[in-house]
Amino acid sequence: MARGRFVSLEGPEGAGKSTHLARLAERLRAEGLTVRTTREPGGTKLGEAIRAILQHDAAGEPPTPTAELLLFLACRAQLMDEVIRPALDRGEWVLSDRFCDSTFAYQGYGRGMDLAELRALNRFATHAAKPDLTLLLDIPEAESRVRVAGRGAPDRFERERADFHRRVAEGFRDLARHSHRIVRIASTGTTEATAEAVWAAVRPLLQEGERP
Amino acid sequence: MARGRFVSLEGPEGAGKSTHLARLAERLRAEGLTVRTTREPGGTKLGEAIRAILQHDAAGEPPTPTAELLLFLACRAQLMDEVIRPALDRGEWVLSDRFCDSTFAYQGYGRGMDLAELRALNRFATHAAKPDLTLLLDIPEAESRVRVAGRGAPDRFERERADFHRRVAEGFRDLARHSHRIVRIASTGTTEATAEAVWAAVRPLLQEGERP
Repeated sequence: MARGRFVSLEGPEGAGKSTHLARLAERLRAEGLTVRTTREPGGTKLGEAIRAILQHDAAGEPPTPTAELLLFLACRAQLMDEVIRPALDRGEWVLSDRFCDSTFAYQGYGRGMDLAELRALNRFATHAAKPDLTLLLDIPEAESRVRVAGRGAPDRFERERADFHRRVAEGFRDLARHSHRIVRIASTGTTEATAEAVWAAVRPLLQEGERP
Repeated sequence: MARGRFVSLEGPEGAGKSTHLARLAERLRAEGLTVRTTREPGGTKLGEAIRAILQHDAAGEPPTPTAELLLFLACRAQLMDEVIRPALDRGEWVLSDRFCDSTFAYQGYGRGMDLAELRALNRFATHAAKPDLTLLLDIPEAESRVRVAGRGAPDRFERERADFHRRVAEGFRDLARHSHRIVRIASTGTTEATAEAVWAAVRPLLQEGERP
C-alpha cells in the first residue's frame, strides 16, 4: 500500500482555499485515491467547539494572544491524533484547509510572537509531523478585503485591522521563500487557471506514491 | 502599597481545597487584605467554557492527552493575563484552587508526559510567573475515593483508574519534596486543625508583605 500524503492549503481570507481544496479532492478521487478533507481550526468535534470560541467568541470573552495560540494548538493536536495520523496510516490522502503555517503567519508575523518558540510549540502539538506539500494561495490584500466583505458578518480575525492582514500576507510569502515544502500559487486568474496550477504542484506527489 | 501575593492550593480530589481556600480567604480579609479567589481549569469566561470541555466532554469527544494539556494551558494563560497578574499588580492577594502543579501531577506523573517539557510549556503559558506559596493538601488515596464517591456524578478525571490517581498523589508528594515553594499539609484531621496548619504556612507571607 502506498503511504498517504498530507497536503495543506494556506493563504489569506478569500484566497480560494475551500474552493480549491474541494476541486483538488475531486481530482485525486478521480485518480482512485481515498481522500480525507478537513479544516483548521476544527475538523473534529472538539476542534469545532474550540473554533466557535476562537472565531466567534462563543465563550463571551476573547482569548488573550497566548490563550489563542494554545487553543489553536489544542485543535491541531486533536486533529493530528484523531484524524490525520490514522488516515495517513491507512494510506489515505489528507487535505487540510489551513495548518501550521497559519500559526506562523497569524500569531508569528501578525501578532508578533517569536517564530522559534511557535515552531517548538507546534512540534509538540503535532509530534513533529508536517505536511508533505503546502499550497499557498496568494492574492493581493485589496482583493482579499473585497472577497471577504461579500461574505456577510466577519469573524474575529476578519475584523482585525488592515496592517494585521498585511503582516499576515507578507508572512505567508516570507515562509514560502524559506521553505521548499511551500509552493506559492497566484490565485488571481480564473478558478480554472488556479486549479491547474494547484494540480501541477500536487502531481509529483502522486508519482512518488507509485514507487515501490 | 504592599505587593500582592499568589497562593495556590493543590492536592487530589476530595482533599479539602475549596473548603480551605474559602476559609483562608476569609481569614486574610479579616486582616484587611483584598483577596481574589479563583480556580483551575476555569476562573474566566473562556476558562469555564474550556472546563466544561475538559471535565464533562462538552464537545462530545474527549481530548487526546496532548490536546488536553494544551487546553489546560490555554485556561491558565487566560487566567494569568486577565485575572491573576492584574490583581497582583493592584496589590491584591490571589488564591487559586489548583495551578501549575496540577499539570505536573496529572499530565506528568499521571499521564507520563515529560516533566521538563511540561515545565517549558507552563513557563510559556504563564510568562514564567509562579505562586509565592503552594499548599499541598494531602490525604490517603482511600480517603480521597470515599470523599469523591459522596459527591454525585464523577467528572472525566474522577473516573480515571485507581493507578492513575495513585501516580498523581505520589507525584504531588514528589513535587513537594523537591520544591521549597510547596508546603505539604496533612488534611486528615479536623477541618479546624488543617485550617490552622494552612494559616501557619501562609502567615510568614503576610509579614513579608509588611516590609517597606
